[in-house]
Amino acid sequence: MRVIVVGATGTIGKAVVKLLALEHEVVKAASKSGDYLIDISQKSSIEKLFREVGSFDALVCAAGVARFGPLAELSDEDFQLGVSSKLMGQVNLVRVGLNYIRDNGSFTLTSGVLSRQPIPGSAAISTVNAGIEGFVHAAALELPRGVRINAVSPPWVKETMEALGMNGSSGMPAERVAQAYLASISGTRSGNVINAKDFA
Amino acid sequence: MRVIVVGATGTIGKAVVKLLALEHEVVKAASKSGDYLIDISQKSSIEKLFREVGSFDALVCAAGVARFGPLAELSDEDFQLGVSSKLMGQVNLVRVGLNYIRDNGSFTLTSGVLSRQPIPGSAAISTVNAGIEGFVHAAALELPRGVRINAVSPPWVKETMEALGMNGSSGMPAERVAQAYLASISGTRSGNVINAKDFA
Repeated sequence: MRVIVVGATGTIGKAVVKLLALEHEVVKAASKSGDYLIDISQKSSIEKLFREVGSFDALVCAAGVARFGPLAELSDEDFQLGVSSKLMGQVNLVRVGLNYIRDNGSFTLTSGVLSRQPIPGSAAISTVNAGIEGFVHAAALELPRGVRINAVSPPWVKETMEALGMNGSSGMPAERVAQAYLASISGTRSGNVINAKDFA
Repeated sequence: MRVIVVGATGTIGKAVVKLLALEHEVVKAASKSGDYLIDISQKSSIEKLFREVGSFDALVCAAGVARFGPLAELSDEDFQLGVSSKLMGQVNLVRVGLNYIRDNGSFTLTSGVLSRQPIPGSAAISTVNAGIEGFVHAAALELPRGVRINAVSPPWVKETMEALGMNGSSGMPAERVAQAYLASISGTRSGNVINAKDFA
């Protein structure tokens, strides 16, 4: 399969690339480096990616940002960032990618544990992650030509926690999280939110 | 209690106003008529509402729009409408309203059955409704001074179906849906998505 990984240089993205490259042709897209540069918050950048990459069998998105912070301190821009990037960026990858994806292809987006297990400070992220899950459930009902869509919901990732100066011992290593993306691409499921913990 | 109903002239809003007015002082806000005019997609309009209304005990939002239509036909503007209006409009009512709400007050937003039971054509609406629910779950963890927040998830409403030329016999009358909003305002629950069917 020809698989586009968006966010290929991030913590999860790198692990997904490494795992998928064992069996598939991987096209790496990311905001700062990779085969292709992309800013998913800009629809024109998404359109450019697909024009350049052409047809593909699967797309994984492990890109998109949203701000963590106390509700009382989150700014308009903080909310807008999450909506433009992690939420609509991923929705638009699907909307545009539908014109390029091969029959029976798949889209795998990324939500996250904070949609269902919020914590203080997660209001913007929980909003965005839940929105992605709502989109995936609904879009799956309409995708043509056998195309599938799922979201992977990662828990806290070990490497991310360590990068934030936290104790990462309760986190899941990115290489295990990557297994959930492989399951989405390889299986027949669609419209699912795949809890990465199920693949630990 | 002094209750602001945003979307007071809509199908659900009218029923909520009628029910709440039996026991409470109701301040009606809506896009086209009412005590106060508001466009919830504009944060400046939300700020103006609260400056003019002042302190209150409960806010119900039954306003906000999102577009129904096939995923392949929904435009950027269709998605943006739902995000700006029903999603961020309601989020911003809470963010700004927090400066005006009295101790132990409550916010009651509106999501909808399509977040959890999507149908073909609901991709934009399901995204938005799920996002609202994610926000409510998370924001409840941080609200100060005993302030609560819930979302009511209405099923298909009888009057709405009839207005769309559908057979409304399977829909829930708006006056029953209103009971769920009353339950949110009156009880002690917070962080809940209240299925209006539980009050039928």
